[in-house]
Amino acid sequence: MPSLEFWFDFGSNYSYLSVMRIEAAAAQRGVAVQWRPFLLGPVFQSLGWRTAPFLQQELKLAYVWQDMVRECRKYGLPWQQPSVFPRKAVLALRVALWADEQPWVGEFCRRTMALNFGQDRDVESEASVRATLQAMGLDADSVIAHALSEPNKLRLRTQTETAMAKGIFGAPTFFAGQDMFWGNDRLDDALAHCQALEH
Amino acid sequence: MPSLEFWFDFGSNYSYLSVMRIEAAAAQRGVAVQWRPFLLGPVFQSLGWRTAPFLQQELKLAYVWQDMVRECRKYGLPWQQPSVFPRKAVLALRVALWADEQPWVGEFCRRTMALNFGQDRDVESEASVRATLQAMGLDADSVIAHALSEPNKLRLRTQTETAMAKGIFGAPTFFAGQDMFWGNDRLDDALAHCQALEH
Repeated sequence: MPSLEFWFDFGSNYSYLSVMRIEAAAAQRGVAVQWRPFLLGPVFQSLGWRTAPFLQQELKLAYVWQDMVRECRKYGLPWQQPSVFPRKAVLALRVALWADEQPWVGEFCRRTMALNFGQDRDVESEASVRATLQAMGLDADSVIAHALSEPNKLRLRTQTETAMAKGIFGAPTFFAGQDMFWGNDRLDDALAHCQALEH
Repeated sequence: MPSLEFWFDFGSNYSYLSVMRIEAAAAQRGVAVQWRPFLLGPVFQSLGWRTAPFLQQELKLAYVWQDMVRECRKYGLPWQQPSVFPRKAVLALRVALWADEQPWVGEFCRRTMALNFGQDRDVESEASVRATLQAMGLDADSVIAHALSEPNKLRLRTQTETAMAKGIFGAPTFFAGQDMFWGNDRLDDALAHCQALEH
């Protein structure tokens, strides 16, 4: 089964669109998703940017919020412009990374993203992450302890360094083999490319 | 008949994709195209950018050229990475502006774009513009004289100021009524929105 690497950060609004739809879209094409949570902030900083480039461009940022309204309507997703942006969901990223091969990783990511961008709710606090895990029927204390373990924290730093080494400069980013696709607008092309590589 | 404003510059690679496909895509939806050539350089400068933002970001620029290869394949368009980028096709923009309500404006724009991005050929010189007009069976001397007239030169400056006043920060940009859509990736959404406004 071909697989697509999916690099994302919970703070990224265009990652929201991809997180919500990638598993269904990939399943339709017989492609497996490899979840690759990483910290987008250090990547921007390594490129000499203080934060997301469009956050420093007033006109573009205003446009992005209009675009998100329309994109969410197009995909049938809830939308509420976050009052804190971008949210730094480090613990949630550590959970997603620790669980990246668990069958529930997709659902955890969708719930976290839906809180942030569908309801403008906190996703940064441990209480928020715990509530999400509990709502999924998981042992929240155990998962959080694993997520906060030193090896897992180190793994998130390494994952972020790997993102830089691969030439990632934004999120979401997809890799089909060695081929990089940037942005939710390229998810379908990336999946199609993945299928074609297989044949 | 609903109409879509199409703001573009011949130097812009993503404008190339839209120039080549907009008339056919609009016709399928019963939408008229209003051609709005403008100078992208002064818009970038007014925003404090020396040139296109991605030109100043090495990783993103390298990605853009990969993306163009794939996008052109997807749309069935010829592609050759321009050895001069971005080309400043001021005379061609003046011609397109002078001809913006002529039935041949679309063909002139497609021929100019296909030279720049399909064949890596000069589109800046008067000789190049003349050859394009002649190949279309037009009176090139007359068209160029009109394009270079003071009122038409002033009109291109005014058009560019209008772009800034409308909040345009890149190309291609589409307006369906008051609603702005940025990027070739939004052309189909902009056309669909145009149709919906009509009903």
